[in-house]
Amino acid sequence: MSLDKVYAYIDANTDDFVEDLVKLVKQPSVSAKGEGIQECAELVEKMMQEIGLSTKIFHEEKGNPVVYGEIKSKKSDRTLLFYDHYDVQPPEPLEKWMYEPFSGKISDGKIYGRGASDNKGNLVSRLKAVQALLEVTGDVPVNIKFFVEGEEEIGSPHLEPIIKKYKDLFSADAAIWEFGGTDRRGRPNLYLGLKGVLSVELRAGGASKDVHSANAPIIPNPAWRLVWALNLLKDKEENILIEDFYENVLSPSSEEIECLRNIPFEEEETKKELELKKFLQNKSGIEALKALLCQPTCTINGFVSGYTGKGSKTVLPHEAVAKLDFRLVPNQNSNEIFRKLVKYLKNRGFGDLEIIKHGCTEPTKTPINDPFVKLVAKTAEKVYGKRAVVYPISAGSGPMHLFRNFLGYPVVSVGCSHPEANTHAPNENLKIKSFIKGTKFIAALIGDFAL
Amino acid sequence: MSLDKVYAYIDANTDDFVEDLVKLVKQPSVSAKGEGIQECAELVEKMMQEIGLSTKIFHEEKGNPVVYGEIKSKKSDRTLLFYDHYDVQPPEPLEKWMYEPFSGKISDGKIYGRGASDNKGNLVSRLKAVQALLEVTGDVPVNIKFFVEGEEEIGSPHLEPIIKKYKDLFSADAAIWEFGGTDRRGRPNLYLGLKGVLSVELRAGGASKDVHSANAPIIPNPAWRLVWALNLLKDKEENILIEDFYENVLSPSSEEIECLRNIPFEEEETKKELELKKFLQNKSGIEALKALLCQPTCTINGFVSGYTGKGSKTVLPHEAVAKLDFRLVPNQNSNEIFRKLVKYLKNRGFGDLEIIKHGCTEPTKTPINDPFVKLVAKTAEKVYGKRAVVYPISAGSGPMHLFRNFLGYPVVSVGCSHPEANTHAPNENLKIKSFIKGTKFIAALIGDFAL
Repeated sequence: MSLDKVYAYIDANTDDFVEDLVKLVKQPSVSAKGEGIQECAELVEKMMQEIGLSTKIFHEEKGNPVVYGEIKSKKSDRTLLFYDHYDVQPPEPLEKWMYEPFSGKISDGKIYGRGASDNKGNLVSRLKAVQALLEVTGDVPVNIKFFVEGEEEIGSPHLEPIIKKYKDLFSADAAIWEFGGTDRRGRPNLYLGLKGVLSVELRAGGASKDVHSANAPIIPNPAWRLVWALNLLKDKEENILIEDFYENVLSPSSEEIECLRNIPFEEEETKKELELKKFLQNKSGIEALKALLCQPTCTINGFVSGYTGKGSKTVLPHEAVAKLDFRLVPNQNSNEIFRKLVKYLKNRGFGDLEIIKHGCTEPTKTPINDPFVKLVAKTAEKVYGKRAVVYPISAGSGPMHLFRNFLGYPVVSVGCSHPEANTHAPNENLKIKSFIKGTKFIAALIGDFAL
Repeated sequence: MSLDKVYAYIDANTDDFVEDLVKLVKQPSVSAKGEGIQECAELVEKMMQEIGLSTKIFHEEKGNPVVYGEIKSKKSDRTLLFYDHYDVQPPEPLEKWMYEPFSGKISDGKIYGRGASDNKGNLVSRLKAVQALLEVTGDVPVNIKFFVEGEEEIGSPHLEPIIKKYKDLFSADAAIWEFGGTDRRGRPNLYLGLKGVLSVELRAGGASKDVHSANAPIIPNPAWRLVWALNLLKDKEENILIEDFYENVLSPSSEEIECLRNIPFEEEETKKELELKKFLQNKSGIEALKALLCQPTCTINGFVSGYTGKGSKTVLPHEAVAKLDFRLVPNQNSNEIFRKLVKYLKNRGFGDLEIIKHGCTEPTKTPINDPFVKLVAKTAEKVYGKRAVVYPISAGSGPMHLFRNFLGYPVVSVGCSHPEANTHAPNENLKIKSFIKGTKFIAALIGDFAL
């Protein structure tokens, strides 16, 4: 395969590729609000069909459609699967956008819009890489599968049954995950895993309505119950106190720790942006990075009870609610952690609290010495001219475990994004240069995967 | 003095008295919103002048006017002061009212409207008692002073400087406080004191904005800081843990405990209304009542941080706020408790929290064996034909301490309300029968006070 010809095709068709991405960005697809989902799924399917993939839509009751596309190689048995998503984060706060969030406005060499980077840019770059290979060589070097879901930004709640039902269809030798890009030094970044997340809500109840606080000596106060219960979960030294919470935590290997040393960690920039004198527990450098990537957490996302307006009000509230998330690391399991949480609170006298599970994904990672990791790193270095930075795991979450653990193949996350892409924030964008370079990288990667 | 003639005058003028009360109820005077305050103060002053009192308005900068009225007795040196307020609670929730809250609608022998009982009904009954004495006897048996403020429902924040500046003017031999009435068995209730209250706000800060909860291992979470700080204030057994919090608490005397035994405590009705299986710590009967009246408290009125909407959001909040009130009993002092709170949190590593004082009043009580208490109880028994029920202290709060402690005379709270008056609630009302009986009671009381 002549990679040069493929690259030349990509360069020659840059305008068309950008146009297709702009078309996709212009189609809102906010899963949190259920806006434009069906239309966007159809657009993605059409785009797949136009480059020659055969497609299929999977639609779980109440879930958003999964768009699946595939094309077989004439000469290889190996299969590479791409996991992407067509849904996007809500664009709010709207007033902070320079252009309309679904305009796809091109300015200063960048395509602006919600989803431009995350994940429509990555999705289109992958589709265009396959198109380039097909157009130039009349074949693909390996079998290609696209798994494009519509609920990634809301925790992929309907994915598991589809994966389990059609597990043979989604089999592969390896998968490329949805996100990634280059860092400030232009180095390609590889992510080998994701933390899991367990979201819960704790609710304490009292009287059937708020009463005057003069009644405090005799009427139970759910705000106090909730404070006492939360206090049992984590101490001031950040130790999570739920019994056996750390039981299955896999400590990072020495190789993984070694990887951390190569990861750029923009400590001072982060502190400045957040107006913080220091990080939690005065963590710094490699210790802070190790905590960020390898440590499980228990976080209060929010709580509310009673009067929260200006000044004071002598009220005794009738309920109190807290939202928490636990970030889990390999080999913790969200169901197990939920069971431990419930048991722990019950054993300590808080069986009266209502504990609601809002969602979960499992932690997962692909070993750093997996041949597929080495291959992706090598191709990235070849394309970008700089040594890849390997994150043994990312601080974020997603349904990667279904592919890595249930379907059972190595998964690496790489992409065409860049540090100023404002993912999940106002003015999200994708540099056209990064988009095109990323398209070439994926074409090269598919080629190398055949060898 | 012929009390019979006074009573006859009151009976003969019932319609006029009711008309005056309706006029006052029709004038909104919601101190929480600053609505109609000036107009209501003027109406009160006019009503005082019409019955022959000389009046004076005290107006602190930013405060609502205090309406003061007095009339001297030709034959007595003794002075009785009435403390009342013309401001009312907000009428919300409006949809639960049978009639417009400021309509003064008369139905079924009741005057409906916000303030009908609390405190316009009591205020008018006292003014009309003085009017009856003046009209029938051409004199008042003792010097009479009316101190009618406009900020009782918002904690009387501007009262202290006025009292301190004009202390000679407000001198008296005793005072009747603003509230009270008969209970379900028709017995007149006397209240000899009030708890104090200290309202505070605790604020914990973190980063300058909310961040993604994936950052939890390195970014401080103010919601956790606040939980840990609150947890230090009170334990699960309801012990307030602030150092020396209970230092000056005066235990109720055996005489006071004896009083408690005569107090009707509607335990089952309260539980039913609030859908509670049991009171806090399974308290019941005299123990519950003793706690309610004699125990200091630390109450979370409300708290808020981060995401509090539906479902979950993986956010790490940038601030957390809690509102608390402490109910104080004699001889605690709000400034001292505030200092102890600040010191305690600082000593335990929470010096970073912002602690805001929103307001305070001091606890106070008049001894149960004070001659004025005996006199009020005796007159009440004479008028109502039933033995008075004496509350050594009430669970509520107010600026009584300024009169009892600073001005230094005995204070007893009695009034013309009744159990179905819905004070502070929708459909507040005053039975015309109770209003007229209460007017007679005050007239008799003024007469007895001269003896």
